Amino acid sequence: MERQEEKITILRLTEETRNSVEDVVATEFPLTIILNNQELVTLLCSPVNLKYLAVGFLFSEGLLKSKDEINKIIVDERRGVVRVEAEESHELARDALFKRLITSGCGRGTSFYSATDTAAQKVESRVKISAHDVFNLVGEFQHRSRTYRATGGVHSAALCDTKNILLFSEDIGRHNAVDKIFGECILKDIPTDRGIVITSGRISSEILLKVARRNIPILISRSAPTSLGSRLAADLGITLIGFVRGKRMNAYSNDWRIVTVGN
Amino acid sequence: MERQEEKITILRLTEETRNSVEDVVATEFPLTIILNNQELVTLLCSPVNLKYLAVGFLFSEGLLKSKDEINKIIVDERRGVVRVEAEESHELARDALFKRLITSGCGRGTSFYSATDTAAQKVESRVKISAHDVFNLVGEFQHRSRTYRATGGVHSAALCDTKNILLFSEDIGRHNAVDKIFGECILKDIPTDRGIVITSGRISSEILLKVARRNIPILISRSAPTSLGSRLAADLGITLIGFVRGKRMNAYSNDWRIVTVGN
Repeated sequence: MERQEEKITILRLTEETRNSVEDVVATEFPLTIILNNQELVTLLCSPVNLKYLAVGFLFSEGLLKSKDEINKIIVDERRGVVRVEAEESHELARDALFKRLITSGCGRGTSFYSATDTAAQKVESRVKISAHDVFNLVGEFQHRSRTYRATGGVHSAALCDTKNILLFSEDIGRHNAVDKIFGECILKDIPTDRGIVITSGRISSEILLKVARRNIPILISRSAPTSLGSRLAADLGITLIGFVRGKRMNAYSNDWRIVTVGN
Repeated sequence: MERQEEKITILRLTEETRNSVEDVVATEFPLTIILNNQELVTLLCSPVNLKYLAVGFLFSEGLLKSKDEINKIIVDERRGVVRVEAEESHELARDALFKRLITSGCGRGTSFYSATDTAAQKVESRVKISAHDVFNLVGEFQHRSRTYRATGGVHSAALCDTKNILLFSEDIGRHNAVDKIFGECILKDIPTDRGIVITSGRISSEILLKVARRNIPILISRSAPTSLGSRLAADLGITLIGFVRGKRMNAYSNDWRIVTVGN
Protein backbone atom coordinates (compact mmCIF):
# COMPACT_ATOMS: atom_id res chain seq x y z
CA MET A 1 0.00 0.00 0.00
CA GLU A 2 1.53 3.27 -1.09
CA ARG A 3 1.08 6.43 0.92
CA GLN A 4 -1.05 7.90 -1.81
CA GLU A 5 -3.70 5.22 -1.39
CA GLU A 6 -5.81 4.07 1.56
CA LYS A 7 -7.68 0.83 2.07
CA ILE A 8 -11.28 1.22 3.19
CA THR A 9 -14.34 -1.00 3.55
CA ILE A 10 -17.21 -0.17 1.23
CA LEU A 11 -20.52 -1.68 0.23
CA ARG A 12 -20.86 -2.90 -3.36
CA LEU A 13 -24.48 -2.85 -4.48
CA THR A 14 -26.64 -4.02 -7.33
CA GLU A 15 -30.44 -3.79 -7.42
CA GLU A 16 -30.70 -6.98 -5.41
CA THR A 17 -27.40 -7.47 -3.57
CA ARG A 18 -25.17 -5.66 -1.05
CA ASN A 19 -21.69 -6.95 -0.26
CA SER A 20 -19.10 -5.49 2.04
CA VAL A 21 -15.70 -5.43 0.28
CA GLU A 22 -12.24 -3.89 0.70
CA ASP A 23 -11.48 -1.07 -1.70
CA VAL A 24 -8.72 1.45 -2.27
CA VAL A 25 -9.19 5.23 -2.49
CA ALA A 26 -6.70 7.98 -3.28
CA THR A 27 -5.38 9.78 -0.21
CA GLU A 28 -6.25 13.48 -0.04
CA PHE A 29 -3.74 15.40 2.04
CA PRO A 30 -3.73 19.12 2.92
CA LEU A 31 -0.27 20.64 2.40
CA THR A 32 0.42 24.20 3.53
CA ILE A 33 3.24 26.05 1.77
CA ILE A 34 5.01 28.73 3.78
CA LEU A 35 7.42 31.05 1.97
CA ASN A 36 9.64 33.17 4.24
CA ASN A 37 7.22 32.78 7.15
CA GLN A 38 4.27 33.83 5.03
CA GLU A 39 1.55 31.19 4.75
CA LEU A 40 0.78 31.19 1.05
CA VAL A 41 -1.56 28.39 0.27
CA THR A 42 -2.99 25.05 1.35
CA LEU A 43 -3.02 22.55 -1.50
CA LEU A 44 -5.06 19.37 -1.40
CA CYS A 45 -2.73 16.78 -2.82
CA SER A 46 -1.39 13.24 -2.79
CA PRO A 47 1.22 12.96 0.01
CA VAL A 48 4.30 12.08 -2.05
CA ASN A 49 7.04 14.33 -3.40
CA LEU A 50 5.88 17.25 -1.28
CA LYS A 51 9.14 19.11 -1.77
CA TYR A 52 8.80 18.94 -5.55
CA LEU A 53 5.21 20.09 -5.31
CA ALA A 54 6.08 23.11 -3.17
CA VAL A 55 8.95 24.18 -5.42
CA GLY A 56 6.98 23.58 -8.61
CA PHE A 57 4.06 25.59 -7.25
CA LEU A 58 6.28 28.54 -6.28
CA PHE A 59 7.86 28.64 -9.74
CA SER A 60 4.56 28.18 -11.56
CA GLU A 61 3.15 31.13 -9.64
CA GLY A 62 6.19 33.25 -10.46
CA LEU A 63 7.17 33.54 -6.78
CA LEU A 64 10.58 32.02 -7.42
CA LYS A 65 12.58 32.45 -10.60
CA SER A 66 15.80 30.54 -9.99
CA LYS A 67 16.96 27.66 -7.85
CA ASP A 68 19.72 29.89 -6.48
CA GLU A 69 17.14 31.96 -4.64
CA ILE A 70 16.25 28.99 -2.42
CA ASN A 71 18.17 28.93 0.88
CA LYS A 72 16.39 26.08 2.63
CA ILE A 73 13.41 23.74 2.25
CA ILE A 74 11.98 22.04 5.34
CA VAL A 75 9.31 19.38 4.85
CA ASP A 76 7.20 18.52 7.91
CA GLU A 77 5.14 15.59 6.67
CA ARG A 78 3.39 15.02 9.97
CA ARG A 79 2.00 18.54 10.11
CA GLY A 80 1.51 18.83 6.36
CA VAL A 81 3.77 21.85 5.98
CA VAL A 82 6.59 22.77 3.61
CA ARG A 83 8.63 25.81 4.63
CA VAL A 84 10.72 27.46 1.94
CA GLU A 85 13.28 30.09 2.82
CA ALA A 86 14.34 32.17 -0.15
CA GLU A 87 15.93 35.44 -1.16
CA GLU A 88 13.45 38.28 -0.82
CA SER A 89 13.27 39.63 -4.33
CA HIS A 90 9.72 39.23 -5.51
CA GLU A 91 7.53 41.19 -3.15
CA LEU A 92 5.50 42.50 -6.03
CA ALA A 93 4.82 39.08 -7.45
CA ARG A 94 3.73 37.85 -4.06
CA ASP A 95 1.27 40.69 -3.69
CA ALA A 96 -0.03 39.94 -7.14
CA LEU A 97 -0.62 36.31 -6.18
CA PHE A 98 -2.91 37.34 -3.39
CA LYS A 99 -4.83 39.68 -5.60
CA ARG A 100 -5.43 37.50 -8.56
CA LEU A 101 -5.52 33.92 -7.49
CA ILE A 102 -8.38 32.22 -5.89
CA THR A 103 -10.44 29.86 -7.77
CA SER A 104 -13.18 27.45 -7.83
CA GLY A 105 -12.45 23.99 -8.94
CA CYS A 106 -9.74 23.70 -11.48
CA GLY A 107 -9.69 27.38 -12.19
CA ARG A 108 -7.39 30.04 -10.91
CA GLY A 109 -7.97 33.67 -11.67
CA THR A 110 -5.54 35.35 -13.89
CA SER A 111 -4.02 38.29 -15.52
CA PHE A 112 -2.68 35.52 -17.68
CA TYR A 113 -4.20 36.44 -20.98
CA SER A 114 -2.11 39.54 -21.20
CA ALA A 115 0.81 39.25 -23.58
CA THR A 116 2.91 41.22 -21.11
CA ASP A 117 2.68 38.46 -18.53
CA THR A 118 6.10 37.06 -17.69
CA ALA A 119 4.75 33.58 -18.45
CA ALA A 120 3.98 34.60 -21.97
CA GLN A 121 7.34 34.27 -23.64
CA LYS A 122 7.06 32.47 -26.91
CA VAL A 123 8.61 29.00 -27.03
CA GLU A 124 11.20 28.93 -29.84
CA SER A 125 12.53 25.34 -29.72
CA ARG A 126 12.77 23.64 -33.15
CA VAL A 127 12.48 20.13 -31.63
CA LYS A 128 10.29 17.72 -33.61
CA ILE A 129 8.63 14.39 -32.80
CA SER A 130 7.20 11.72 -35.06
CA ALA A 131 3.55 10.73 -34.70
CA HIS A 132 4.86 7.21 -34.12
CA ASP A 133 6.87 8.37 -31.10
CA VAL A 134 3.87 10.28 -29.69
CA PHE A 135 1.82 7.08 -29.70
CA ASN A 136 4.68 5.14 -28.07
CA LEU A 137 5.19 7.72 -25.33
CA VAL A 138 1.49 7.88 -24.53
CA GLY A 139 1.30 4.07 -24.43
CA GLU A 140 4.18 3.96 -21.95
CA PHE A 141 2.61 6.81 -19.96
CA GLN A 142 -0.62 4.90 -19.52
CA HIS A 143 1.26 1.82 -18.50
CA ARG A 144 2.92 3.83 -15.73
CA SER A 145 -0.32 5.26 -14.37
CA ARG A 146 -0.67 2.42 -11.92
CA THR A 147 -2.35 4.30 -9.11
CA TYR A 148 -5.07 5.50 -11.38
CA ARG A 149 -5.93 1.95 -12.15
CA ALA A 150 -6.13 1.12 -8.45
CA THR A 151 -8.20 4.07 -7.24
CA GLY A 152 -9.64 5.76 -10.31
CA GLY A 153 -8.88 9.07 -8.64
CA VAL A 154 -5.39 10.22 -9.56
CA HIS A 155 -3.91 12.30 -12.39
CA SER A 156 -0.51 11.64 -13.92
CA ALA A 157 2.10 13.85 -15.57
CA ALA A 158 5.41 13.09 -17.22
CA LEU A 159 8.43 14.84 -18.69
CA CYS A 160 9.82 13.06 -21.75
CA ASP A 161 12.30 13.43 -24.53
CA THR A 162 11.15 12.19 -27.93
CA LYS A 163 11.89 8.56 -27.02
CA ASN A 164 11.59 8.10 -23.24
CA ILE A 165 9.75 9.13 -20.11
CA LEU A 166 12.29 10.93 -17.90
CA LEU A 167 10.14 11.92 -14.91
CA PHE A 168 6.71 10.72 -13.84
CA SER A 169 4.34 11.95 -11.13
CA GLU A 170 0.86 11.33 -9.82
CA ASP A 171 -1.48 13.47 -7.76
CA ILE A 172 -5.18 13.81 -7.05
CA GLY A 173 -4.93 17.27 -8.70
CA ARG A 174 -3.93 17.63 -12.33
CA HIS A 175 -2.16 20.92 -11.59
CA ASN A 176 -0.23 19.34 -8.73
CA ALA A 177 0.97 16.45 -10.89
CA VAL A 178 2.47 18.95 -13.36
CA ASP A 179 3.98 21.10 -10.58
CA LYS A 180 5.65 18.01 -9.07
CA ILE A 181 7.38 17.31 -12.38
CA PHE A 182 8.63 20.86 -12.68
CA GLY A 183 9.73 21.04 -9.04
CA GLU A 184 11.86 17.95 -9.60
CA CYS A 185 13.35 19.48 -12.78
CA ILE A 186 14.27 22.64 -10.92
CA LEU A 187 15.85 20.93 -7.92
CA LYS A 188 17.78 18.43 -10.05
CA ASP A 189 18.79 20.94 -12.75
CA ILE A 190 17.01 18.97 -15.48
CA PRO A 191 16.54 21.23 -18.51
CA THR A 192 13.00 21.42 -19.93
CA ASP A 193 13.36 23.54 -23.02
CA ARG A 194 13.44 20.63 -25.45
CA GLY A 195 11.09 18.57 -23.28
CA ILE A 196 7.70 17.05 -23.89
CA VAL A 197 5.04 17.02 -21.17
CA ILE A 198 2.25 14.45 -21.05
CA THR A 199 -0.74 14.92 -18.76
CA SER A 200 -3.75 12.73 -18.11
CA GLY A 201 -5.89 15.81 -17.49
CA ARG A 202 -7.67 18.37 -19.57
CA ILE A 203 -5.68 21.33 -20.90
CA SER A 204 -6.99 24.56 -19.46
CA SER A 205 -5.24 27.93 -19.65
CA GLU A 206 -3.58 27.31 -16.30
CA ILE A 207 -1.87 24.09 -17.31
CA LEU A 208 -0.82 25.70 -20.58
CA LEU A 209 0.76 28.64 -18.76
CA LYS A 210 2.64 26.41 -16.32
CA VAL A 211 4.13 24.60 -19.29
CA ALA A 212 4.94 27.86 -21.12
CA ARG A 213 6.79 29.13 -18.05
CA ARG A 214 9.14 26.12 -18.29
CA ASN A 215 9.61 26.75 -22.01
CA ILE A 216 8.23 23.33 -22.98
CA PRO A 217 7.68 23.05 -26.76
CA ILE A 218 5.28 20.06 -26.87
CA LEU A 219 2.31 19.33 -24.59
CA ILE A 220 0.33 16.10 -24.95
CA SER A 221 -2.95 15.12 -23.28
CA ARG A 222 -5.15 12.09 -23.62
CA SER A 223 -8.02 14.45 -22.96
CA ALA A 224 -9.46 17.72 -24.35
CA PRO A 225 -8.21 21.29 -24.30
CA THR A 226 -10.40 24.29 -23.54
CA SER A 227 -10.77 27.15 -26.03
CA LEU A 228 -8.36 29.33 -24.04
CA GLY A 229 -5.83 26.53 -23.58
CA SER A 230 -5.80 25.97 -27.32
CA ARG A 231 -5.55 29.70 -28.15
CA LEU A 232 -2.69 30.29 -25.72
CA ALA A 233 -0.80 27.29 -27.11
CA ALA A 234 -1.06 28.79 -30.59
CA ASP A 235 0.08 32.23 -29.39
CA LEU A 236 2.92 30.92 -27.24
CA GLY A 237 4.46 28.66 -29.87
CA ILE A 238 3.53 25.41 -28.10
CA THR A 239 2.55 22.27 -30.00
CA LEU A 240 -0.65 21.13 -28.30
CA ILE A 241 -1.74 17.54 -28.89
CA GLY A 242 -4.97 16.17 -27.44
CA PHE A 243 -7.23 13.14 -27.57
CA VAL A 244 -4.42 10.66 -28.18
CA ARG A 245 -6.36 7.41 -28.45
CA GLY A 246 -4.85 4.35 -30.01
CA LYS A 247 -3.10 5.52 -33.18
CA ARG A 248 -4.99 8.80 -33.63
CA MET A 249 -4.48 12.26 -32.19
CA ASN A 250 -5.60 15.87 -32.60
CA ALA A 251 -3.12 18.72 -33.03
CA TYR A 252 -4.50 22.07 -31.90
CA SER A 253 -1.52 24.33 -32.63
CA ASN A 254 1.99 24.46 -34.08
CA ASP A 255 1.62 21.06 -35.73
CA TRP A 256 4.88 21.58 -37.70
CA ARG A 257 6.68 19.87 -34.81
CA ILE A 258 4.84 16.59 -35.52
CA VAL A 259 6.33 14.47 -38.28
CA THR A 260 4.21 11.93 -40.16
CA VAL A 261 5.51 9.31 -42.57
CA GLY A 262 6.09 10.93 -45.95
CA ASN A 263 6.20 14.45 -44.51
CA MET B 1 -23.43 26.25 -31.39
CA GLU B 2 -23.93 26.98 -27.72
CA ARG B 3 -21.94 29.69 -25.99
CA GLN B 4 -20.12 27.08 -23.96
CA GLU B 5 -18.55 25.59 -27.09
CA GLU B 6 -16.36 27.00 -29.86
CA LYS B 7 -15.69 25.65 -33.31
CA ILE B 8 -12.01 25.51 -34.28
CA THR B 9 -9.94 23.97 -37.05
CA ILE B 10 -7.55 21.25 -35.95
CA LEU B 11 -5.28 18.71 -37.59
CA ARG B 12 -6.21 15.05 -37.13
CA LEU B 13 -3.15 12.81 -37.41
CA THR B 14 -2.24 9.18 -37.64
CA GLU B 15 1.28 7.87 -38.25
CA GLU B 16 0.84 8.41 -41.98
CA THR B 17 -1.91 10.99 -42.48
CA ARG B 18 -2.74 14.57 -41.51
CA ASN B 19 -6.17 16.02 -42.20
CA SER B 20 -7.52 19.43 -41.36
CA VAL B 21 -10.98 19.10 -39.76
CA GLU B 22 -13.48 21.19 -37.83
CA ASP B 23 -13.72 20.37 -34.15
CA VAL B 24 -15.49 21.73 -31.09
CA VAL B 25 -13.78 22.72 -27.82
CA ALA B 26 -15.27 23.85 -24.53
CA THR B 27 -15.16 27.61 -24.02
CA GLU B 28 -13.05 28.75 -21.07
CA PHE B 29 -14.19 32.12 -19.76
CA PRO B 30 -12.70 34.20 -16.94
CA LEU B 31 -15.44 35.49 -14.61
CA THR B 32 -14.58 37.96 -11.85
CA ILE B 33 -16.90 38.07 -8.85
CA ILE B 34 -17.12 41.38 -7.01
CA LEU B 35 -18.91 41.47 -3.65
CA ASN B 36 -19.69 44.96 -2.31
CA ASN B 37 -16.97 46.51 -4.49
CA GLN B 38 -14.38 44.02 -3.31
CA GLU B 39 -12.90 41.88 -6.09
CA LEU B 40 -13.01 38.40 -4.61
CA VAL B 41 -12.06 35.92 -7.25
CA THR B 42 -11.68 35.18 -10.92
CA LEU B 43 -13.16 31.82 -11.83
CA LEU B 44 -12.36 30.07 -15.09
CA CYS B 45 -15.71 28.74 -16.20
CA SER B 46 -18.16 27.98 -18.99
CA PRO B 47 -20.00 31.22 -19.87
CA VAL B 48 -23.57 30.19 -19.05
CA ASN B 49 -25.59 30.78 -15.90
CA LEU B 50 -23.04 33.24 -14.55
CA LYS B 51 -25.46 34.60 -11.99
CA TYR B 52 -26.06 31.14 -10.55
CA LEU B 53 -22.34 30.49 -10.46
CA ALA B 54 -21.60 33.71 -8.57
CA VAL B 55 -24.34 33.14 -6.00
CA GLY B 56 -23.47 29.46 -5.58
CA PHE B 57 -19.81 30.34 -5.07
CA LEU B 58 -20.58 32.99 -2.45
CA PHE B 59 -22.77 30.58 -0.47
CA SER B 60 -20.32 27.67 -0.81
CA GLU B 61 -17.58 29.90 0.58
CA GLY B 62 -19.80 30.99 3.48
CA LEU B 63 -19.76 34.63 2.32
CA LEU B 64 -23.53 34.73 2.05
CA LYS B 65 -25.92 32.82 4.28
CA SER B 66 -29.37 33.79 3.07
CA LYS B 67 -30.94 35.04 -0.15
CA ASP B 68 -32.40 37.96 1.84
CA GLU B 69 -28.91 39.40 2.25
CA ILE B 70 -28.64 39.99 -1.51
CA ASN B 71 -29.65 43.49 -2.60
CA LYS B 72 -28.63 43.40 -6.24
CA ILE B 73 -26.84 41.20 -8.78
CA ILE B 74 -25.45 42.79 -11.94
CA VAL B 75 -24.06 40.50 -14.63
CA ASP B 76 -21.76 42.13 -17.21
CA GLU B 77 -21.18 39.31 -19.67
CA ARG B 78 -19.06 41.37 -22.01
CA ARG B 79 -16.52 42.22 -19.33
CA GLY B 80 -16.80 38.91 -17.52
CA VAL B 81 -17.90 40.43 -14.24
CA VAL B 82 -20.68 39.69 -11.76
CA ARG B 83 -21.26 42.36 -9.11
CA VAL B 84 -23.18 41.32 -6.02
CA GLU B 85 -24.39 43.90 -3.54
CA ALA B 86 -25.30 42.40 -0.18
CA GLU B 87 -25.83 43.22 3.47
CA GLU B 88 -22.48 43.66 5.21
CA SER B 89 -22.61 41.02 7.89
CA HIS B 90 -19.80 38.61 7.24
CA GLU B 91 -16.58 40.57 7.42
CA LEU B 92 -14.92 37.81 9.36
CA ALA B 93 -15.82 35.16 6.86
CA ARG B 94 -14.48 37.30 4.07
CA ASP B 95 -11.15 37.75 5.81
CA ALA B 96 -11.05 34.03 6.38
CA LEU B 97 -11.55 33.40 2.67
CA PHE B 98 -8.46 35.35 1.83
CA LYS B 99 -6.42 33.54 4.41
CA ARG B 100 -7.31 30.02 3.72
CA LEU B 101 -8.28 29.59 0.13
CA ILE B 102 -5.89 29.43 -2.67
CA THR B 103 -5.24 26.27 -4.39
CA SER B 104 -3.58 24.40 -7.05
CA GLY B 105 -5.70 22.44 -9.36
CA CYS B 106 -8.85 21.17 -7.90
CA GLY B 107 -7.78 21.84 -4.36
CA ARG B 108 -8.65 24.69 -2.13
CA GLY B 109 -7.03 25.13 1.22
CA THR B 110 -9.18 24.62 4.17
CA SER B 111 -9.92 24.78 7.80
CA PHE B 112 -12.54 22.35 6.63
CA TYR B 113 -11.53 19.30 8.56
CA SER B 114 -12.44 20.93 11.82
CA ALA B 115 -15.76 19.80 13.24
CA THR B 116 -16.44 23.37 14.29
CA ASP B 117 -16.62 24.54 10.70
CA THR B 118 -20.02 26.00 9.90
CA ALA B 119 -20.22 23.64 6.94
CA ALA B 120 -19.90 20.66 9.19
CA GLN B 121 -23.46 20.28 10.43
CA LYS B 122 -24.56 16.72 10.25
CA VAL B 123 -27.22 15.93 7.64
CA GLU B 124 -30.23 14.39 9.39
CA SER B 125 -32.66 13.70 6.53
CA ARG B 126 -34.24 10.21 6.61
CA VAL B 127 -34.86 10.19 2.84
CA LYS B 128 -34.16 6.86 1.11
CA ILE B 129 -33.64 5.81 -2.51
CA SER B 130 -33.77 2.40 -4.16
CA ALA B 131 -30.70 1.11 -6.00
CA HIS B 132 -33.00 0.83 -9.02
CA ASP B 133 -33.73 4.57 -8.90
CA VAL B 134 -30.02 5.41 -8.51
CA PHE B 135 -29.28 3.57 -11.76
CA ASN B 136 -32.18 5.29 -13.53
CA LEU B 137 -31.13 8.76 -12.39
CA VAL B 138 -27.53 8.22 -13.43
CA GLY B 139 -28.66 6.90 -16.82
CA GLU B 140 -30.77 10.03 -17.36
CA PHE B 141 -27.89 12.21 -16.11
CA GLN B 142 -25.52 10.79 -18.68
CA HIS B 143 -28.07 11.25 -21.39
CA ARG B 144 -28.26 14.95 -20.50
CA SER B 145 -24.50 15.50 -20.56
CA ARG B 146 -24.65 16.52 -24.17
CA THR B 147 -21.80 19.04 -24.15
CA TYR B 148 -19.43 16.53 -22.71
CA ARG B 149 -20.09 14.30 -25.65
CA ALA B 150 -19.35 17.15 -28.06
CA THR B 151 -16.16 18.51 -26.51
CA GLY B 152 -14.97 15.93 -23.99
CA GLY B 153 -14.10 18.81 -21.70
CA VAL B 154 -17.09 19.63 -19.51
CA HIS B 155 -18.34 18.43 -16.13
CA SER B 156 -22.01 18.06 -15.28
CA ALA B 157 -23.98 18.31 -12.05
CA ALA B 158 -27.63 17.76 -11.25
CA LEU B 159 -30.09 18.15 -8.40
CA CYS B 160 -32.67 15.36 -8.28
CA ASP B 161 -35.43 13.94 -6.19
CA THR B 162 -35.59 10.15 -6.02
CA LYS B 163 -37.31 9.94 -9.41
CA ASN B 164 -36.35 12.95 -11.53
CA ILE B 165 -33.62 15.39 -12.44
CA LEU B 166 -34.81 18.82 -11.28
CA LEU B 167 -31.83 21.01 -12.23
CA PHE B 168 -28.88 20.33 -14.50
CA SER B 169 -25.70 22.29 -15.16
CA GLU B 170 -22.44 21.99 -17.06
CA ASP B 171 -19.10 23.71 -16.63
CA ILE B 172 -15.45 23.16 -17.45
CA GLY B 173 -14.86 23.03 -13.67
CA ARG B 174 -16.44 20.33 -11.54
CA HIS B 175 -16.75 22.77 -8.59
CA ASN B 176 -18.41 25.37 -10.79
CA ALA B 177 -20.99 22.89 -12.10
CA VAL B 178 -22.05 22.15 -8.52
CA ASP B 179 -22.05 25.84 -7.52
CA LYS B 180 -24.31 26.65 -10.50
CA ILE B 181 -26.86 24.12 -9.27
CA PHE B 182 -26.83 25.56 -5.76
CA GLY B 183 -26.95 29.16 -6.98
CA GLU B 184 -30.10 28.34 -8.93
CA CYS B 185 -31.63 26.64 -5.87
CA ILE B 186 -30.94 29.68 -3.73
CA LEU B 187 -32.30 32.25 -6.19
CA LYS B 188 -35.41 30.17 -6.99
CA ASP B 189 -36.06 29.06 -3.39
CA ILE B 190 -35.75 25.39 -4.30
CA PRO B 191 -35.21 23.38 -1.11
CA THR B 192 -32.25 20.98 -1.11
CA ASP B 193 -32.53 19.18 2.20
CA ARG B 194 -34.16 16.07 0.74
CA GLY B 195 -32.27 16.40 -2.53
CA ILE B 196 -29.84 14.16 -4.35
CA VAL B 197 -26.81 15.59 -6.17
CA ILE B 198 -25.14 13.81 -9.07
CA THR B 199 -21.75 14.92 -10.36
CA SER B 200 -19.62 13.66 -13.22
CA GLY B 201 -16.48 14.53 -11.29
CA ARG B 202 -14.42 13.00 -8.54
CA ILE B 203 -15.52 13.58 -4.93
CA SER B 204 -12.85 15.51 -3.05
CA SER B 205 -13.33 17.14 0.36
CA GLU B 206 -14.29 20.41 -1.28
CA ILE B 207 -17.20 18.99 -3.27
CA LEU B 208 -18.33 17.09 -0.18
CA LEU B 209 -18.34 20.25 1.92
CA LYS B 210 -20.27 22.25 -0.68
CA VAL B 211 -22.92 19.55 -0.61
CA ALA B 212 -22.93 19.39 3.20
CA ARG B 213 -23.48 23.15 3.37
CA ARG B 214 -26.72 22.70 1.40
CA ASN B 215 -27.77 19.86 3.70
CA ILE B 216 -27.92 17.34 0.84
CA PRO B 217 -28.37 13.76 2.13
CA ILE B 218 -27.25 11.78 -0.95
CA LEU B 219 -24.30 12.47 -3.27
CA ILE B 220 -23.71 10.33 -6.36
CA SER B 221 -20.69 10.29 -8.67
CA ARG B 222 -19.81 8.16 -11.65
CA SER B 223 -16.23 8.56 -10.53
CA ALA B 224 -14.09 7.99 -7.40
CA PRO B 225 -13.98 9.73 -4.04
CA THR B 226 -10.76 10.67 -2.24
CA SER B 227 -9.99 9.40 1.26
CA LEU B 228 -10.97 12.72 2.80
CA GLY B 229 -14.15 13.02 0.74
CA SER B 230 -15.20 9.59 1.90
CA ARG B 231 -14.33 10.27 5.57
CA LEU B 232 -16.16 13.59 5.64
CA ALA B 233 -19.24 11.99 4.08
CA ALA B 234 -19.27 9.40 6.87
CA ASP B 235 -18.84 12.04 9.59
CA LEU B 236 -21.40 14.45 8.12
CA GLY B 237 -24.18 11.91 7.66
CA ILE B 238 -24.09 11.98 3.85
CA THR B 239 -24.70 8.89 1.74
CA LEU B 240 -21.80 8.85 -0.72
CA ILE B 241 -22.21 6.70 -3.82
CA GLY B 242 -19.41 6.34 -6.38
CA PHE B 243 -18.45 4.37 -9.47
CA VAL B 244 -22.00 3.94 -10.72
CA ARG B 245 -21.43 1.88 -13.85
CA GLY B 246 -24.23 -0.02 -15.49
CA LYS B 247 -26.13 -1.74 -12.68
CA ARG B 248 -23.38 -1.63 -10.07
CA MET B 249 -22.29 1.00 -7.57
CA ASN B 250 -20.12 1.53 -4.51
CA ALA B 251 -21.48 3.03 -1.28
CA TYR B 252 -18.80 4.70 0.83
CA SER B 253 -20.87 5.91 3.78
CA ASN B 254 -24.34 5.91 5.32
CA ASP B 255 -25.57 3.17 3.01
CA TRP B 256 -28.81 2.77 5.06
CA ARG B 257 -30.38 5.32 2.70
CA ILE B 258 -30.01 2.91 -0.25
CA VAL B 259 -32.74 0.29 -0.55
CA THR B 260 -32.10 -2.97 -2.41
CA VAL B 261 -34.77 -5.53 -3.34
CA GLY B 262 -35.52 -7.66 -0.29
CA ASN B 263 -34.04 -5.14 2.16
